[in-house]
Amino acid sequence: MPSTTSSHARTVADVGEFGIIADIVRDLSMPPAVATGPGDDSAVFLVNGSAVMSTDMLVEGVHFRRDWSSGTEIGRKAVAVNAADLEAMGVTPLVMNVGLGVPGDLPVQWVHDVATGLRAEADAAGLTLVGGDTTSARDVTLCVTVIGQTEGREPVPRSGARAGDVVACRGRLGWAAAGLAALGRGFRSPRAAVDSQRVPLVPYGAGRQAARAGATAMIDVSDGLIADLGHIADASDVRIDLRSDAFELPDPVRAVAAATGKDPLGFVLTGGEDHALAATFPAGAVPDGWVEVGAVAETDGTAPGVTVDGAAWSGEGGWEHFRA
Amino acid sequence: MPSTTSSHARTVADVGEFGIIADIVRDLSMPPAVATGPGDDSAVFLVNGSAVMSTDMLVEGVHFRRDWSSGTEIGRKAVAVNAADLEAMGVTPLVMNVGLGVPGDLPVQWVHDVATGLRAEADAAGLTLVGGDTTSARDVTLCVTVIGQTEGREPVPRSGARAGDVVACRGRLGWAAAGLAALGRGFRSPRAAVDSQRVPLVPYGAGRQAARAGATAMIDVSDGLIADLGHIADASDVRIDLRSDAFELPDPVRAVAAATGKDPLGFVLTGGEDHALAATFPAGAVPDGWVEVGAVAETDGTAPGVTVDGAAWSGEGGWEHFRA
Repeated sequence: MPSTTSSHARTVADVGEFGIIADIVRDLSMPPAVATGPGDDSAVFLVNGSAVMSTDMLVEGVHFRRDWSSGTEIGRKAVAVNAADLEAMGVTPLVMNVGLGVPGDLPVQWVHDVATGLRAEADAAGLTLVGGDTTSARDVTLCVTVIGQTEGREPVPRSGARAGDVVACRGRLGWAAAGLAALGRGFRSPRAAVDSQRVPLVPYGAGRQAARAGATAMIDVSDGLIADLGHIADASDVRIDLRSDAFELPDPVRAVAAATGKDPLGFVLTGGEDHALAATFPAGAVPDGWVEVGAVAETDGTAPGVTVDGAAWSGEGGWEHFRA
Repeated sequence: MPSTTSSHARTVADVGEFGIIADIVRDLSMPPAVATGPGDDSAVFLVNGSAVMSTDMLVEGVHFRRDWSSGTEIGRKAVAVNAADLEAMGVTPLVMNVGLGVPGDLPVQWVHDVATGLRAEADAAGLTLVGGDTTSARDVTLCVTVIGQTEGREPVPRSGARAGDVVACRGRLGWAAAGLAALGRGFRSPRAAVDSQRVPLVPYGAGRQAARAGATAMIDVSDGLIADLGHIADASDVRIDLRSDAFELPDPVRAVAAATGKDPLGFVLTGGEDHALAATFPAGAVPDGWVEVGAVAETDGTAPGVTVDGAAWSGEGGWEHFRA
């Protein structure tokens, strides 16, 4: 009898594309700015100020493993990494679309969990799910596109850092990389680090806070602090020097570093996927909750770049896809 | 010597994520509405009227095969299927983001071809590439999100069809399905049908034309005309009856039908992936270039749905993912 079939046993192929979509969009409520949500050829919504758009694609086996993370965690991560890109512009999150590729033999319950995660993180970030696409795929793939609005503020670019500015961060650094190192050795602890790898703790609202405080450049830390500040240095044609003693070395990061024989500062300076925010501010303008970690200087004829205590960082670098 | 290395032999892994992105965005020019294009955390652009957003994900082995289509064709298709969703709302295409997943051993030249295709079709549709994400993946995956703008017009929904309206189509019907049937049997002809499967010929501008003419409901034909008009019938709570003698049976479709022992009308009525537009208009309002193919009636207590010559279609249905 169909009514007694466990939903855990049903697969994506059993319910089909439209069944999955119906489950994902069930009971969604739309804010007044959204004239048309899911269910038509496109979503329609009003933007206050300029529109701001970012896309991130997460692929099973590359960005997550189903044996390391739950569906809910994977859904949350897919939204968090995108919302962080809006925070990094200092704008207000508005709506999102989700492209979801899943194998036909996946349990429906797992997709339901992904939807739960997508919506939970969207709520946290201030985003509303307004549409997307569902398809079959060998590997679970989530491609989220988020739209934000400037509400009259100027977006904070990567290119505005000026000599004399200070560098400050807000959010976790090194936790996700430490969590990945732990998971890679078969451990599920320290729990706080592993959880950070599964779902980054994006400092929602801190991007707008920085923009209002006059941040001159900003980025979210996806590839590692040195690598991502390198993008600001390149775009702004400046040198950035970090003070190693300015960084907290959190207990979970210390624990993993001790267990793996690595330098905890290496995790903090080069670990990616935490999606903390890093920004430059005029001296004296660093807002509450941000930690001052360095300074911006002229290139003085040298190449733009990032140093630590005045010297090139000799530890490991950040993460780049396709490269070892 | 690196300078003599053939670009055909270099792989994605050789040039890395940033090398690929640099190739995709090379020499892109931004229209005045785009304040920030590729290269920052997010793109920033002005929207004239309400924003309209749609996402489609294309996966190797599901939506295309690399031995059936070139990189350029796959790039073009990924944009075309999305732009068709904006046309189906009657709005003006504006910008797009592309999520691209590719295996590390893929030749760089192939990715370059995809980028060429993305940009060629974006030009045709009136879209500007403003950002995206590149990652490694086992199967080539393209997830395109397009943004359009209403420019003060009302978007055309699926839900506005009313009894007494006429149904009209613009664009190809059945060509892509015929092409797929030919490819599936190992043929590369009829060329026009096979080309339609590789890259749909979206009737760009026809959606805005329909909106200006007073279209009451509109959709693009991705799953098959009967299936997609079924979405309009459901959303509008009406019955739609098609006249079989109103449809042209194009030569390439006839040829494939003859070779495969199928009914050419079946390809026309249920074949997907052509991304023609189907719309309902008040009687007398069908604009030039559109072909009148049926009429809208009350449900009269029956379920909403689509009939052909007054009866349920007994041939094959449209395409739904995960289902056979």
